[in-house]
Amino acid sequence: MEAKASRTALSPVNFLHSAAQAMGDRTAVVHGDVRRTYAELAERAGRLASALRAAGVEDEDRVAVLCPNTPVILEAHYGVPATGAILVTINTRLSASEVGFILSDCTPRVVIVDAELAPLLEEADLGDARVVVAEDEGGDYEALLAEGDADGLAPYEGDEDAVISINYTSGTTGNPKGAMYTHRGAYLRAHGVALEAGMDAATVHLWTLPMFHCNGWCLPWAVTAAGGRHVCLRKVEPGRIWELFDAEGVTHYSGAPTVHLGIVGHDDAHPLEQRVTVPTGGSPPSPTLLGRMRELNLHPVHLYGLTETYGPIMSCTPHPEWAELPMERQAELLARQGRTYNGSDRVRIVDDDMQDVPADGETLGEIVMRGNSVTVGYWNLPDETEEAFRGGWFHSGDLGVMHPDGYVELRDRAKDVIISGGENISSVEIEQVLARHPAVHEAAIVATPDEKWGERPKAFVELKPGEQLEEEELLAFCKENLARYKTPAAVEFGELPRTSTGKIQKFVLREREWSGREKAIQ
Amino acid sequence: MEAKASRTALSPVNFLHSAAQAMGDRTAVVHGDVRRTYAELAERAGRLASALRAAGVEDEDRVAVLCPNTPVILEAHYGVPATGAILVTINTRLSASEVGFILSDCTPRVVIVDAELAPLLEEADLGDARVVVAEDEGGDYEALLAEGDADGLAPYEGDEDAVISINYTSGTTGNPKGAMYTHRGAYLRAHGVALEAGMDAATVHLWTLPMFHCNGWCLPWAVTAAGGRHVCLRKVEPGRIWELFDAEGVTHYSGAPTVHLGIVGHDDAHPLEQRVTVPTGGSPPSPTLLGRMRELNLHPVHLYGLTETYGPIMSCTPHPEWAELPMERQAELLARQGRTYNGSDRVRIVDDDMQDVPADGETLGEIVMRGNSVTVGYWNLPDETEEAFRGGWFHSGDLGVMHPDGYVELRDRAKDVIISGGENISSVEIEQVLARHPAVHEAAIVATPDEKWGERPKAFVELKPGEQLEEEELLAFCKENLARYKTPAAVEFGELPRTSTGKIQKFVLREREWSGREKAIQ
Repeated sequence: MEAKASRTALSPVNFLHSAAQAMGDRTAVVHGDVRRTYAELAERAGRLASALRAAGVEDEDRVAVLCPNTPVILEAHYGVPATGAILVTINTRLSASEVGFILSDCTPRVVIVDAELAPLLEEADLGDARVVVAEDEGGDYEALLAEGDADGLAPYEGDEDAVISINYTSGTTGNPKGAMYTHRGAYLRAHGVALEAGMDAATVHLWTLPMFHCNGWCLPWAVTAAGGRHVCLRKVEPGRIWELFDAEGVTHYSGAPTVHLGIVGHDDAHPLEQRVTVPTGGSPPSPTLLGRMRELNLHPVHLYGLTETYGPIMSCTPHPEWAELPMERQAELLARQGRTYNGSDRVRIVDDDMQDVPADGETLGEIVMRGNSVTVGYWNLPDETEEAFRGGWFHSGDLGVMHPDGYVELRDRAKDVIISGGENISSVEIEQVLARHPAVHEAAIVATPDEKWGERPKAFVELKPGEQLEEEELLAFCKENLARYKTPAAVEFGELPRTSTGKIQKFVLREREWSGREKAIQ
Repeated sequence: MEAKASRTALSPVNFLHSAAQAMGDRTAVVHGDVRRTYAELAERAGRLASALRAAGVEDEDRVAVLCPNTPVILEAHYGVPATGAILVTINTRLSASEVGFILSDCTPRVVIVDAELAPLLEEADLGDARVVVAEDEGGDYEALLAEGDADGLAPYEGDEDAVISINYTSGTTGNPKGAMYTHRGAYLRAHGVALEAGMDAATVHLWTLPMFHCNGWCLPWAVTAAGGRHVCLRKVEPGRIWELFDAEGVTHYSGAPTVHLGIVGHDDAHPLEQRVTVPTGGSPPSPTLLGRMRELNLHPVHLYGLTETYGPIMSCTPHPEWAELPMERQAELLARQGRTYNGSDRVRIVDDDMQDVPADGETLGEIVMRGNSVTVGYWNLPDETEEAFRGGWFHSGDLGVMHPDGYVELRDRAKDVIISGGENISSVEIEQVLARHPAVHEAAIVATPDEKWGERPKAFVELKPGEQLEEEELLAFCKENLARYKTPAAVEFGELPRTSTGKIQKFVLREREWSGREKAIQ
């Protein structure tokens, strides 16, 4: 008896239960003219949970969600795991064939789709899955909630090690892989990120970061844990964002430097009364961007992580003393990462024998991690899981150095991932599409700098002997076969630089693209 | 392999490991002229751990600590559990016989005692225990550290459900009971309290709250989790506190209203530049005290908890809207508690059949709780443990009401505990001492209001027929048998009010003492 009373399951579902009890009459969700309290959010999540159960959803069944940042995807972060089912949020920028792959891989029992995104289901083999279309007002989704029980949200008392969600990687080796998160991992990460971002009951979080991306870095749960407010946002539009900064008293928003560039560059930009904390992924903000953000009272906290680590696993906790340093030096220090969000997670930089590299800021090693907020493995891929965890640590594939002060600096992405607008793009995936064109001999994709997106993919293509091809034609071919954001920014034809054994020397291409830039990570 | 890498033990020991890695060169501890970095704190904790192991301390062995808030007791919060041993911190205000009881109950292998407190060990049967005397400079303790390994602090990878500490209650039914905490519970509470108190790397926590008391509400671990700074304090002296507020830029201190009264009433009191957050236990601050604290930039957060709940389990999260209410109403609202620190812990108010009482702010019920930060039981007392957890919930013995907004308000202490200067005093315990005096027929102890201590015990005594006794004589008898702070403030002789069945009506005595006062909890 006492064992049960002294050991309750760690599940982020319980944050909503707790917020609804103590802060039931406070505003939890803002979406356009819609304002809902925590009691109402809990009621809707409870209705969703009970309606899903009534529809036959059982423990470990998958429920897929393809939605922008509307209240629907937020409610799904509670209503789906409350049933014991697994939430699969899908990147809304993928092509219909990519969405089709993910749905065939995770075989959901229910798919909740925003009306605007319904065409993305066209190529999916949905089998017996029930499709629920959500609209801002009405639609199947509201009808489903009406079927549910208003008191349907009970505290989660299941297994804390059960899978809560599957998040698909960008697919660095071809097909995306489904990284599985647990209730326990999500709970701990949510608490950790709330602590790191300094969230409390006065927090107003604007949803610029897609909730489909690594479960929005666990922020759908963290904001609720703090008793803060979720301001939903269907589209990232800087003008609208400035309106909401003022009208809603936003204290936090999250995203990649692309998002910040759009915000600081907008005509309506002005210094805010309230301090805004900005958890930031992707490439680190430049000194110029950092300076401009500070002028507007926007304060980035730089993060590092992977889909496999529930989003960011490390953050750059600024030492209070740094505030007095010149902006250039601050930007340099803030681009590093020192602490894990979760005090039980650990990050090391190791050599090929799993020995720590010296903390000299020079010796390159692979970043490996372990902890409760590291995926328990890839959905249905035991071999890939075993490979990723060789030596008892998760292998990021990223290369970095350890500075003498214990802060990590990323130096390269071993897997050649390109980060564009905060989204990971696999160069290998694009290369494979290019290779399918009959005129192409071989292709290499590297990141090219882009003012707006941070990085975009650029294609270097060697044609088959005697073949001729126009850039435009090849880009059209890419658009047919890839999500628009993965389509290369440009194509350059010619002989590719190679090693003596014939391997393409991507670093040569990268150096050419990035020469004169300050960017450390290529 | 992957299971281990994705599931690491929750232990607050790992907060120090993490802080030492990422913030090794930042100041962790201030004690008079001594300043030590996180690297140095970790080194000393590691030396302590390895020296204890070398001295034969094994898993689950007890290590007792009897120290004021010097660096020694802070180091013990890491060095002792890092070995797998159990930390027992002892109230320094107890009498030698009370200390003796606790030591005979927990049978420690090592006792670390501050040189000033060594006389408190005089009545203890220490058996084979090694006694280590700590002095601010030198002493056995420093010699012990010198025996240890500078790299002795490894991440804790043991069982997270293992007992990390035993904290003795004030002994409401006579002898104190040892409430056992776990690594998991302490980790979660520390993260929760850091989040609730808004701690970060800029936090400077002044140690006014005794670390022996419920492991200092888990703050020895929480401040480190946040990467903040511990300012030690051997004695609570308001003049010294004001010096440190300014000199060290204190952002947090914790304690009972008694401590605050001393601070705000001191000649050196002045409005501080920095905002100071003040986790506050015991009776709620009065509107007058609250107003005065705000003027000085001190902001209390009111808490409720028990030794059995790792200190505070609930806090009053102020709704931002409350700031605009009149001070009287704010004080009323701030005296309640709404949220648990740990999102998996739960608190209910129930009737005798374990049904929730209506949330009407009127119906009295018993406060019961469950969660990871609820004791796993009393050391060596299986029957008392079973009784406390009847119905699957921990029974606080405290009575309260649930308000319609989901906030709890305490109304009475069913067990008649008196809270004096933040310390619990059991009325039963004093009554038992009084009953031992040959002239006493029966005695009742109730709380009487006290400007400085909040409450103090007052004795109502019925003498045996024909006996005569002076107040002074009886108080001297108490001083011989009780800690000084438990000695009644006054004695009143006369017939005791009784029920028809002869039970003493304490509420009659309480009403007499408290008439005209605003205090809800008597």
